[in-house]
Amino acid sequence: MVEQVRSYLEQHQDRFVKELTEFLKIPSVSADSTLNSETRRGAEFVLKQLEDAGIESQIIETAGHPIVYGAWKKAEGKPTVLVYGHYDVQPPDPLDQWITPPFEPDIRDGHIYARGATDDKGQMYTHIKSVEAWMKTHGELPVNVIFVIEGEEEVGSDNLDRFLEENKDLVASDIAVISDTSQYAPGIPAITYGLRGILACEVIVQGPSQDLHSGVFGGAVMNPGNGLAKMIAALHDDEGRVRIPGFYDGVIELQPEERAQFAALPFDEAKFMSDLGVNAVSGEADFSTLERRWARPTCDVNGMISGYTGEGPKTIVPAESRVKISCRLVPGQDPVALTKALEQYLRAQLPTGLTMEFVDFHGCNALVFDFNSPYMSAAKTAIEQSFGAAPVMIREGGSIPVVETFQTVVGVETLLLGWGQNTDNLHSPNERFALEAFRQGTLASALLWHELAGVTV
Amino acid sequence: MVEQVRSYLEQHQDRFVKELTEFLKIPSVSADSTLNSETRRGAEFVLKQLEDAGIESQIIETAGHPIVYGAWKKAEGKPTVLVYGHYDVQPPDPLDQWITPPFEPDIRDGHIYARGATDDKGQMYTHIKSVEAWMKTHGELPVNVIFVIEGEEEVGSDNLDRFLEENKDLVASDIAVISDTSQYAPGIPAITYGLRGILACEVIVQGPSQDLHSGVFGGAVMNPGNGLAKMIAALHDDEGRVRIPGFYDGVIELQPEERAQFAALPFDEAKFMSDLGVNAVSGEADFSTLERRWARPTCDVNGMISGYTGEGPKTIVPAESRVKISCRLVPGQDPVALTKALEQYLRAQLPTGLTMEFVDFHGCNALVFDFNSPYMSAAKTAIEQSFGAAPVMIREGGSIPVVETFQTVVGVETLLLGWGQNTDNLHSPNERFALEAFRQGTLASALLWHELAGVTV
Repeated sequence: MVEQVRSYLEQHQDRFVKELTEFLKIPSVSADSTLNSETRRGAEFVLKQLEDAGIESQIIETAGHPIVYGAWKKAEGKPTVLVYGHYDVQPPDPLDQWITPPFEPDIRDGHIYARGATDDKGQMYTHIKSVEAWMKTHGELPVNVIFVIEGEEEVGSDNLDRFLEENKDLVASDIAVISDTSQYAPGIPAITYGLRGILACEVIVQGPSQDLHSGVFGGAVMNPGNGLAKMIAALHDDEGRVRIPGFYDGVIELQPEERAQFAALPFDEAKFMSDLGVNAVSGEADFSTLERRWARPTCDVNGMISGYTGEGPKTIVPAESRVKISCRLVPGQDPVALTKALEQYLRAQLPTGLTMEFVDFHGCNALVFDFNSPYMSAAKTAIEQSFGAAPVMIREGGSIPVVETFQTVVGVETLLLGWGQNTDNLHSPNERFALEAFRQGTLASALLWHELAGVTV
Repeated sequence: MVEQVRSYLEQHQDRFVKELTEFLKIPSVSADSTLNSETRRGAEFVLKQLEDAGIESQIIETAGHPIVYGAWKKAEGKPTVLVYGHYDVQPPDPLDQWITPPFEPDIRDGHIYARGATDDKGQMYTHIKSVEAWMKTHGELPVNVIFVIEGEEEVGSDNLDRFLEENKDLVASDIAVISDTSQYAPGIPAITYGLRGILACEVIVQGPSQDLHSGVFGGAVMNPGNGLAKMIAALHDDEGRVRIPGFYDGVIELQPEERAQFAALPFDEAKFMSDLGVNAVSGEADFSTLERRWARPTCDVNGMISGYTGEGPKTIVPAESRVKISCRLVPGQDPVALTKALEQYLRAQLPTGLTMEFVDFHGCNALVFDFNSPYMSAAKTAIEQSFGAAPVMIREGGSIPVVETFQTVVGVETLLLGWGQNTDNLHSPNERFALEAFRQGTLASALLWHELAGVTV
């Protein structure tokens, strides 16, 4: 069975690249309302591809850009897989830094260069082509498949959550699959089984009602710049640990197996430092750089401002100071409770003579999936057979909110299967996707349907 | 002798107000180059008034606005008094907040309202009129008098220092007099015998070479926002004392007599707080608010900026952070040495993984004059006889750089005799000067020449 699919994919690979090229020519920039008709063309392209593959599909209107929904559910007794992706792309600016225009796909060095090549048109497209291969060779799929391809991922997915909430029957499934992350490195495919959560806020500290002359008043009123600095400084101890009370309560620590897996990954710390332009790594004591990035909670200043910031001196006591703070969270930490704890802690540090306002930007939970689940095992096998190397099990330091939505609304875990590379210029000029990764990803997807069919539901 | 001068001043007071009105009509805004010809008219007005008073005078060109210089030196064996003032004014913006236009002087509530009314045209003018009164009634002055009236005080006095350096013979004198400060409060005339010094700098702390995604990198690199906050927080201990090593070495402490004088001054702390909009005063332990403002050194953030400061969240690790810091200094503190000490201390606090740049904005020394000197006694007598109350001896928290220049270049102390009030809207809309203060100031000035004549030089 699988051999026929392999052959089909090989025979049609050139056509797939041509079709992807047509897809990438569509400037479906969701943030640019002057391109709304092009963004809709992106949805229509996906619809036609799904239908051509033999998946009954439709365009579902939202308050913003439409969602493309398709479903094939004739594999009785088999798992149902929810495939998520997005057809919208980031704005292409700055245009002058593109070697070839962002919406005129160019193939060179074994890569296809265009906006959306990897994020997410190229990666998402692998799943449509793998379904096509099964349908054209067998007239059916080994598992049930539901496609939800949205057009607002790059602008916050405002309408996706409501669609999922209101259509739980349409998206009822056993496992979700998303290809919108990366391999660990070239030649090292990866499955991302954990994501950090986040909380974010802004703190406004008010001193005098207006900026004061630092000669006339300095020393007699609390300076909100100095005061805020004391508050921020109190967020960490000298070992880089966060001092918010209760911050580490309930944190699910890394398992020895995970630490061993991370430690076994090739990681060039000198290159990491030189790429970032820092002269040292830093962070919580007793953890490696990968552990700090993927699996330890943080508390970062995102921005701050106070008083006079123009050229030269201006000797004032500022009226106020502001800081934006975000904490990356790990499993076991509750963003709502910790936001409250952060606010209380900062209020406790607030120096006499200042008042404080706290703005909650809301957050999301961290997620870690069992990397030994049957679904994970199926994905490992499919990837190893296609890429020729077993995937490493990694985490990501950022958040992918839809993954939490799938867990809380749909009740499923997600397989995060990235075919691209971190170096593919996501959100930057000269975005690209390796044709070999496109081929391997499509095959891995086709094999995944086969492997998932063996999972008992 | 003095009675004739008193009578002259009374008889001519109305004319003085009319002349001052004409002076205030001239928009001599030194910062506005489109008004350069008006600023020059301001100089010419002063020149004519000095000449009409019988003082040989001239306009001295500089690289910027001219200096008006006048001298009468026929009081052999008597002290020579250097009178400093400025004919330039602050810009009048915001214009829409003026009840009557800034350059159309209006008399109401016993005050003359116009830009420059108190700062410094009205106050400076008292010394010209007092000289006129002596010359018209006696044909001579009790002391030698030199006038240096500049036109760049509101833009940094760039050319005054050079003039003084290059013309030491022209300005050789025994004591300087400046009326560009304020009384302590209505009905409480004051002599300012001390000024704080200052040092100022900017500190730039660099982390990664560009802003980083706080999810991907947060926790693994030192955040320059958090790092700078730690450095700023380290500047003070919990009792509000500055922790820069050596900061308090050599500080000349307040004498018990001074503390008693300050404590005896009426000071409504509740009103002070409510005027500034703060819910508490704050500062170095064991000192009163007036002591903190006038006679204790400080270390204030003037401004700071890092990362994202727009609306809403943006979860980055900023590439850099910046802070502007100024320290107000008191006698015994060396701004040059302490700037070095501040830089060294901040470098010692710099967290691993960050680099730091330090920009020195330069500073000036604090000054305190003997408030029991013969010159001070002469001024006290003159003020008490004119204002009907003995002046209180106060300090100012700010700096008046020309006072340090007079000390270092000319070698004289300065009598800071303010006739106006803090509430006269200096540098703000509806600047004003009480006509009674104008009258009392002119008489005090006339009496001062008489009293200074008794000082042995």
